[in-house]
Amino acid sequence: MSTLFTKIINGVIPCYKIAENEKFFAFLDINPLQKGHVLVVPKQETDYLFDLSDDLLADLIIFSKKIAAAIQLSFDCNRVGMSVIGLEVPHAHIHLIPINSEKDMNFSRPKLKLETTEFEEISQLISSNIKT
Amino acid sequence: MSTLFTKIINGVIPCYKIAENEKFFAFLDINPLQKGHVLVVPKQETDYLFDLSDDLLADLIIFSKKIAAAIQLSFDCNRVGMSVIGLEVPHAHIHLIPINSEKDMNFSRPKLKLETTEFEEISQLISSNIKT
Repeated sequence: MSTLFTKIINGVIPCYKIAENEKFFAFLDINPLQKGHVLVVPKQETDYLFDLSDDLLADLIIFSKKIAAAIQLSFDCNRVGMSVIGLEVPHAHIHLIPINSEKDMNFSRPKLKLETTEFEEISQLISSNIKT
Repeated sequence: MSTLFTKIINGVIPCYKIAENEKFFAFLDINPLQKGHVLVVPKQETDYLFDLSDDLLADLIIFSKKIAAAIQLSFDCNRVGMSVIGLEVPHAHIHLIPINSEKDMNFSRPKLKLETTEFEEISQLISSNIKT
């Protein structure tokens, strides 16, 4: 059975897409810790990040760097933090979160509730800031 | 002035070392969230992870994958989580933490207080599990 993220990649479940290439897909976390909280996933269904091949792992972090640069251009933040926990969905994913303090990356905090229009504006803003 | 991590890499400040190569250095976090909480840093002094060159960033994540595999062999954990926050020390560093639940990566929790002998045992255990 496909993972939640494969369904999102294939358009079976809608998302606020940020970018994709042949190997990776980036979209907004629907339960964000901050505005601009993005998930980056490999299209290959692998549960655990460190089970990815060295080559795919390397390409994933370089793809994530490009997305992080776009997030940083889009929001007033000190930097973009990165987190991989991965216990909820069995499909490796990197959280990229614009942060100004350590607590901005505390996953035990209540998540933001955003309107559809806010998600759309945020995804368009980040997408427009990606350098090709 | 050298960063705290450069002083550790150069042996000016002692640490519980896990591994190093020409580009990277891994050692125990002295304020661990879990037993086996490791920091991986580039020897190059760069504040922000995503300011590293693509090549160095790729090599760093592949080096971290090797360390994560050794951590997983050393502790009873579901997987090794990864976090980059980086607001405290201006020298890019990856946290690798053995986890069984999301809360194991909550940086706002009180840190563990371990004895010197425990740190020594943990560093030796992880080091011995690194596959060359």
